[in-house]
Parts: sequence; structure tokens; C-alpha cells
Amino acid sequence: MFEIEAALAQNARDVDAVLGSLLPASDDREARLMEAVRYSTLSGGKRIRPFLVRSSADLFGVSHGLALRVAAAIEMIHSYSLIHDDLPAMDNDDLRRGMPTCHVKFDEATAILAGDALIARAFEVLAEPATHADPRVRADLVVEVARASGGEGMVGGQMLDLLAAQWKLEIAEITRLQRLKTGALIAVSCEAGAILGKAADSHRHALRAYAHDLGLAFQIADDLLDVEGSAEETGKRTHKDESAGKATFVSILGPERARAQSHMLAHQAIQHLEPFSAQAEPLRALALFVVTRRY
Amino acid sequence: MFEIEAALAQNARDVDAVLGSLLPASDDREARLMEAVRYSTLSGGKRIRPFLVRSSADLFGVSHGLALRVAAAIEMIHSYSLIHDDLPAMDNDDLRRGMPTCHVKFDEATAILAGDALIARAFEVLAEPATHADPRVRADLVVEVARASGGEGMVGGQMLDLLAAQWKLEIAEITRLQRLKTGALIAVSCEAGAILGKAADSHRHALRAYAHDLGLAFQIADDLLDVEGSAEETGKRTHKDESAGKATFVSILGPERARAQSHMLAHQAIQHLEPFSAQAEPLRALALFVVTRRY
Repeated sequence: MFEIEAALAQNARDVDAVLGSLLPASDDREARLMEAVRYSTLSGGKRIRPFLVRSSADLFGVSHGLALRVAAAIEMIHSYSLIHDDLPAMDNDDLRRGMPTCHVKFDEATAILAGDALIARAFEVLAEPATHADPRVRADLVVEVARASGGEGMVGGQMLDLLAAQWKLEIAEITRLQRLKTGALIAVSCEAGAILGKAADSHRHALRAYAHDLGLAFQIADDLLDVEGSAEETGKRTHKDESAGKATFVSILGPERARAQSHMLAHQAIQHLEPFSAQAEPLRALALFVVTRRY
Repeated sequence: MFEIEAALAQNARDVDAVLGSLLPASDDREARLMEAVRYSTLSGGKRIRPFLVRSSADLFGVSHGLALRVAAAIEMIHSYSLIHDDLPAMDNDDLRRGMPTCHVKFDEATAILAGDALIARAFEVLAEPATHADPRVRADLVVEVARASGGEGMVGGQMLDLLAAQWKLEIAEITRLQRLKTGALIAVSCEAGAILGKAADSHRHALRAYAHDLGLAFQIADDLLDVEGSAEETGKRTHKDESAGKATFVSILGPERARAQSHMLAHQAIQHLEPFSAQAEPLRALALFVVTRRY
């Protein structure tokens, strides 16, 4: 049986090593910027998006070094989004991965700039020759990651999430919100492996379909952890959705039906991997992991 | 004689039209995001970076449509930097181009997200096939714009600027600060034309050298306008550097020597254009314009 927790731990070590070298400390007078970038980006995390990039890339025999660079770039985008989302003007969070958030540890201006620097560095890494010999692949990666992270993806979802407090969202609208806010970057993580491996369209679409279900399953599990988990387990403040009066899958469906839904989605995600046989075992194991994790 | 003010006005109209179509209004529930993006990006401005992209591209016979897309993408980066720099946690400005800044007109969260969305959209546009048939050119543009705008360029310069209030910067340090904060994006604007036109290295270097001097001349002129101009003329608050106790070229050299220095730099910039003969007339005229403008 595939040992998903051990594989995630090894993945996190690999990704941290690459992130550390792609985001070197600075000794210029503005060194505080890279300190903040490194503080927030190298502070742990499950590294699920990098795991998706690498596991998808493995399906197509992509070299590990190339996949790791893309994995790190996408994690930079994820990291920037957490820094900006935690800001006082946004979700106003003081705890992330068990540590003070970036603007608490440094200050707001530094946190805003650290996020901005991470975005630029992510696209720089994706487009550099070291990421793939074929510039078409690099340009394609930039386009897809930009779409997934921009106004019609992650940033659009965050805007919608901020506005949603005023509305009573229904399940279909929450689904759309989450598809934008977290789903798009999860989808492009899977797709990136296919792009790197110049996979057939059918394989690229199968991975997108897997990622789509996985992303929703992941989000419902996150909502459940917010209700049922503690700050010690999750490393972040819990019971936030409830106190913000936010409509979530759990607030609408109730915890039991929400949990059933997340398991159904995980199994549906696994079904999309049918074209890949045994090689996709890490992706299958991940789908089960995201709906049973306690952190 | 080349009519620089008329050329800039025509350029601004062209750039606004392309920006308007690359940043379409949205009718989704999160439409507020694109409203804020459009408010800040389509609100005028001299459009000097786009003018540099297009004038440089013209030296190498690049098609106008391609150059305009790249010009618009770089203006998006400039626009995002203004939105984030104006935030309360940064420079806390309420007036920009004679209008309320983004976070005043909307709110801080929307302004942060509008900036984030603009970065992603800029890199998406640069990497899309419509920008150049050769994917190597697109990837190269992404790398250079990312470097110029990231932690070792514009964002690094902004961090340094925020920290500098605590230090007594000397001329060499102020020069480095400005090279990062405004110079890097001005340089890549000129270089982008050379990249699009697959210019010889010598031409690319000549344009960088021009841009380097132009950027400093521009900045000194900006510092002078802050001291000598009014909000009516410049569309933004003036006398900010002085009240912030910020060391600038003007505070150290005094207005007279600073003005002489800016004119010297403009002429030095023009000398770097020697390889290009009459075709570089717009770039020459621009160098003289930036040191004599009143806005």
C-alpha cells in the first residue's frame, strides 16, 4: 500500500530545499523583504500543490528536477495568497502554520511587498530556460498559472469570498467560489505535470477532472476542520467561518452530509484517474488523505 | 521637429484602448474587482513605459499590435505598483492622477486584490501566443519583466524606500534605490522592444544604457516636481518627500544642481541612441520631455 503521509513528508523536504535555493536570503539593505518571503514560504505546510505537480509529472516521465521547479513556483503563488489573505484588510489572521502571520511578524507593508515579490519570482521561475528546454512549454505554464491565480481564478475567488459575507450564498454559488478561490490553483498544479510532459489532451483533461473533484473535497474537509478542529491541530485559528457568519458547505449541509459529500468527491476524483493505472497511486492516495486528514 | 506631447497623447489613446480590451468589465458577482482594476488602470497617466516599449519596438520593425500588447502588460505592472504603493500601510496616498486612490474609492482589500489581479494578467498577456509567434520571445519577456518588477527590482526598491526613512541615504544609495524602484521597469520597457524585434545584443545594451540614464533623469524631475509643483499640476499630493523627511536628489543636491544633473542625464541618455539614427527621434524627444515636464 502507498504510504501517503511518508510521501508527503518526503515531498515537503524536497520542495523546501528547492524553495530555499530559489528564494535566497539577501544581504542588501532591503534584506527584510527576502526575510519575510522566506519566513512565510519556508514555514512548513502540507505542500499539496507541489505534490500534485510532481505526481502528475511522474505519469509522463518528466525529469524530477524540472517538476520540482514548477512545483516550487506554484507553491510560491500559494504562499503569496496566504500572506495577502491574512492581512488585516482581508481575513485579519494572526496565526498560520502555528506561527505569527507575516504582517504580525514583520509589518503590513513588508507583508504586502513579500507577496508581490513572490508572484514575480514564481513567473520568473516558470519562464526560465532551466524549467524546460521547450520555450512553448514555459510560456504555456505561465499562461495557465496566471489564469488560475488571477482575477478569473484565485484572486477573483478571494474577492467573491470577501463580498459573500453580505449575501446568503447557496450551494451552487459556494461551489463556484471555491472552484475559483482554491480549485483553480489545485487544477493547474495537476495540469502542470501534463504540460511539462506534453501529455495528450485526453490525459490533460482527465487530470483536470480529478483536480476539480479533489479541490472541492479538500475545501469541504477544510470547512469541517474549521468547525471541528483546534488551533493546535491545524496551526491556524478555527471556528472562523461560523463567527464571520460565512455560508460554507458545512453550515448549509451540516457536518454529516458535508463529510459524506467530501468522501463521494474523493472517490469520484479517483475514478477520473482510470486511464493511468498503477502509476497514479500517489494521486489516488492523496484524494483519500485530503478527506481524512486532521490538519 | 518631433512633437513629443502630441505623440504621447496619441500613445495614451492607443494604450488605453488596448488596456480596456485586455481588462474587460465583468458581470460576475465579484465584478467589483475588475471595476477597481479598470478604475485605476484606465484613469489616465502619461503612459511613458508603453511609449518606451513602442518606440523601441519601432526601431526593429516590430508590428504595432504586438508592441501594444507588451506595452499594455508593462503598464499593468506599473499600475499595480501604484495601487499597492498608495495603500495606508505603504505611502498612504489619497490622490492619484487627480482622483481618489483605489483603496479610497473602493476599500483596502479590493485595492490589494486589484493589484494582485493586474500582476497575473500582465504575465498572462506577455506569455500568450498573440504576443509573439516565437514562444522563446514570450518566455524571455516574462523573465525580464518578472526580474524588473520583483524583489531584485521594483518591489525591492519599494522595500528599500520604506526602510530608508530610518537612515540617512547618500547619493549613491539613493541612486541604487531609484534604479530598483523606478529604473528597472523603465529599463525593461526599452528592452522589451529589442526582445520583440530579436535585436542584436549591442542594440539591446544601447537601449538599456539609454533607459538607465532616462530613469534617473525622470526620477530627479519627479523629486523636483514634488518640491516645486502643486497637486493641481501633478494630480497627486506634493511636498511629500520633505514632510516624510526623505532624502532625495533634491534634498541633497539642492534644486539647482539637481535640475542640472537631470538635464545632463537626459543628454547622456540621448548619446546612447547614437546607433539608431533618425528612427530614435521619439526616444530622444522623450528624454528632453521628462526633464522639462510640469506634470
